[in-house]
Amino acid sequence: MELTHFDENGKAVMVDVSGKNVTRRTARAAGKIRVSSGVMNAVLGGSAEKGDVLGAARIAGIMAAKKTSELIPLCHLLPLDSVRISFECDKEAGTISAECTVSNTGKTGVEMEALTGVSVSLLTIYDMCKAIDKRMEIGDIRLIEKHGGKSGDFYA
Amino acid sequence: MELTHFDENGKAVMVDVSGKNVTRRTARAAGKIRVSSGVMNAVLGGSAEKGDVLGAARIAGIMAAKKTSELIPLCHLLPLDSVRISFECDKEAGTISAECTVSNTGKTGVEMEALTGVSVSLLTIYDMCKAIDKRMEIGDIRLIEKHGGKSGDFYA
Amino acid sequence: MELTHFDENGKAVMVDVSGKNVTRRTARAAGKIRVSSGVMNAVLGGSAEKGDVLGAARIAGIMAAKKTSELIPLCHLLPLDSVRISFECDKEAGTISAECTVSNTGKTGVEMEALTGVSVSLLTIYDMCKAIDKRMEIGDIRLIEKHGGKSGDFYA
Amino acid sequence: MELTHFDENGKAVMVDVSGKNVTRRTARAAGKIRVSSGVMNAVLGGSAEKGDVLGAARIAGIMAAKKTSELIPLCHLLPLDSVRISFECDKEAGTISAECTVSNTGKTGVEMEALTGVSVSLLTIYDMCKAIDKRMEIGDIRLIEKHGGKSGDFYA
Amino acid sequence: MELTHFDENGKAVMVDVSGKNVTRRTARAAGKIRVSSGVMNAVLGGSAEKGDVLGAARIAGIMAAKKTSELIPLCHLLPLDSVRISFECDKEAGTISAECTVSNTGKTGVEMEALTGVSVSLLTIYDMCKAIDKRMEIGDIRLIEKHGGKSGDFYA
Amino acid sequence: MELTHFDENGKAVMVDVSGKNVTRRTARAAGKIRVSSGVMNAVLGGSAEKGDVLGAARIAGIMAAKKTSELIPLCHLLPLDSVRISFECDKEAGTISAECTVSNTGKTGVEMEALTGVSVSLLTIYDMCKAIDKRMEIGDIRLIEKHGGKSGDFYA
Repeated sequence: MELTHFDENGKAVMVDVSGKNVTRRTARAAGKIRVSSGVMNAVLGGSAEKGDVLGAARIAGIMAAKKTSELIPLCHLLPLDSVRISFECDKEAGTISAECTVSNTGKTGVEMEALTGVSVSLLTIYDMCKAIDKRMEIGDIRLIEKHGGKSGDFYA
Repeated sequence: MELTHFDENGKAVMVDVSGKNVTRRTARAAGKIRVSSGVMNAVLGGSAEKGDVLGAARIAGIMAAKKTSELIPLCHLLPLDSVRISFECDKEAGTISAECTVSNTGKTGVEMEALTGVSVSLLTIYDMCKAIDKRMEIGDIRLIEKHGGKSGDFYA
Repeated sequence: MELTHFDENGKAVMVDVSGKNVTRRTARAAGKIRVSSGVMNAVLGGSAEKGDVLGAARIAGIMAAKKTSELIPLCHLLPLDSVRISFECDKEAGTISAECTVSNTGKTGVEMEALTGVSVSLLTIYDMCKAIDKRMEIGDIRLIEKHGGKSGDFYA
Repeated sequence: MELTHFDENGKAVMVDVSGKNVTRRTARAAGKIRVSSGVMNAVLGGSAEKGDVLGAARIAGIMAAKKTSELIPLCHLLPLDSVRISFECDKEAGTISAECTVSNTGKTGVEMEALTGVSVSLLTIYDMCKAIDKRMEIGDIRLIEKHGGKSGDFYA
Repeated sequence: MELTHFDENGKAVMVDVSGKNVTRRTARAAGKIRVSSGVMNAVLGGSAEKGDVLGAARIAGIMAAKKTSELIPLCHLLPLDSVRISFECDKEAGTISAECTVSNTGKTGVEMEALTGVSVSLLTIYDMCKAIDKRMEIGDIRLIEKHGGKSGDFYA
Repeated sequence: MELTHFDENGKAVMVDVSGKNVTRRTARAAGKIRVSSGVMNAVLGGSAEKGDVLGAARIAGIMAAKKTSELIPLCHLLPLDSVRISFECDKEAGTISAECTVSNTGKTGVEMEALTGVSVSLLTIYDMCKAIDKRMEIGDIRLIEKHGGKSGDFYA
């Protein structure tokens, strides 16, 4: 098993995908942020503005997924077919989960786009709630599933 | 306790910092990625290319810290005084830890920059090693300490 | 009266502001989009998602205000103190008005940031509603007021 | 008629275009800026540098069209085949009109790119002339025609 | 022979490539930076950090190649298949040479991407070594070879 | 003499400038592109559009100077006070020279901004003329002078 992002001399490269097939590919990633009850109440709060934190985090995550190749040095720029982000607030557990599903039609897959979408949406929640509590913790960021391409289906 | 990123009507705003003092501010954030032994060996591998994964991840994290206000919708653009990222590989635990320290001289602090630097450096490790194993998991992303500004010192 | 963005040979320059005073400056710009009743109903619609179009447009406008110097060739990069965008839906008139208020503490003002914030938030409304009607029209984009700096107060 | 940029729960998504056909698509948008005679004279002025304001505005509009997906949250990144911007100065009416024509070969069209190109080129004219007069007004931004794709031809 | 980036009225355009064939295209560009022996020793220095200057310059060049269409006004955005940058240090001559090879599958070629990758990697070396010597000089930036597309093979 | 962009363990850092004085700083850089007589004639051509190549290259260089910290990994983001780019066509020598002067008021200088402005303006000339001749060569990119800051005046 080898790192593919390096050439025969161990130098970083953006790997050549020119020989790969153009196929439909999808990836789904997830993560969560652990928040205090004060933050959870503010996010879920019974006012008209309910949902604005998550609404902003969703937009931020979608825009970040599109920016992945600018952030991750050796990622290919991939025109995306779709990006979708959903959140789930678990009041008991004190966690907000984020899930990002991305698809494209191309020569390489969109795992990094899905993971970046999740990460930036969770960072946005942190930013918007940090005046209440700075002890939030972001974790469990991982690939859930992936389809298409030579390596085939992947399930976590 | 209130969300500061919303106005009196519950609409998202980039909060007004014009009345705040220009002071030196620092923030330190951390996080880690859980990797298989195959990935750990590749990262630590005894060859000339040793360190290249972490070298690229460090550059990516520093560049991302500078891009924070482009990623997090309501973050202020802050010219940074310094950005520093370090990694620690724990072969036993199967984890690579990242720490990002940022400082600025301004009206608002750099927590988000430090957290973004950590997140993107860990995502870069994922990207460079995902050909070996896609089951890596990123977590424990949190603020460790913060100094300067009206809210004073913070320690996790 | 002369164009300031050109040097003595008529060549475009980013004008030298080094001799100008650092002062607090604000600018407020406005604009509107004329929409069909179908679009207006969708934007105002009585469902849970009410406000999502305007919520996304607000985030887009704030982020664009921060990006102004990347879009307008001779604009200075200005760290902004605040950005605020508000909308008003006039069902009778069939218009959605946007207003963007920006402030900074610097050597030059933020008119372009306010105008850019308005423009991009209106373009975002267009984008999100264009499946219903492509005949929307964006107009009345103008500076409403401006304070601070050598040229003093301006009111439209 | 429904807003397509939302999923079944009313959450914003970047809509899935994976099932759409790759076809040649074009869009043409227009807009104008109302200027004082002082500004008009400066833009048209009888010197060698004549045209520099419009030249810079053209470049800005072309570059902005390419940046559309970074500005408009739910826009797909679309590699463009062509971008063309033209201006027409009407001294009588006191207006400078801009028109932007964009084409691509892809699964979704380029209306937003054409509208963004027009908007940013007009904002650039504002920026370069605002030392003479800040009362310029940008308006009449609209889609003129559109071809290709499932929805077929559109004429304003 | 004519400049293709202008229309029939001499106005800048992003040229229409919609009628061109999608083919595999590659370009290789090179350049060098002349450095003092102090800089050369620091870059080549016998310590663990050996190679870090070139490692950072390589990452910077790869990322810049992906950003070419944001920098060069009339360049098309091209999803790249591969980017590869190599360096060669000639201690005698006091030069560090950089070479950048880029490939894509598209309607227009990647000369500008290769040249931009070389330029930014050399600028990064300058930046990282300028505390030692500011008299470094960057030159010999040129296209070495190019394949694919209607104009066929090119060799310098 | 040491590389300042590395910490005590040889790891890349964005160096801490927080202790440095805020002073006015300027830098001037230059470079040139060697062109065929066909290219020179097209650039200088006796038509109304004369100057458009250089006009576009000037805008590109100014915008690139503002983007320097996004391109050069360890560069600080510096709000610039001014950017100015000039060209000189030497028909005999077959060269077009570019010069970029940048100033800021900050804790670190703008050499990299001036060098980046020169490089990108020359790359833009290459791009706009490459249909005529691909054998153009960019060189002599160097810092000409620099003022302000602890290291004082520098003249090449």
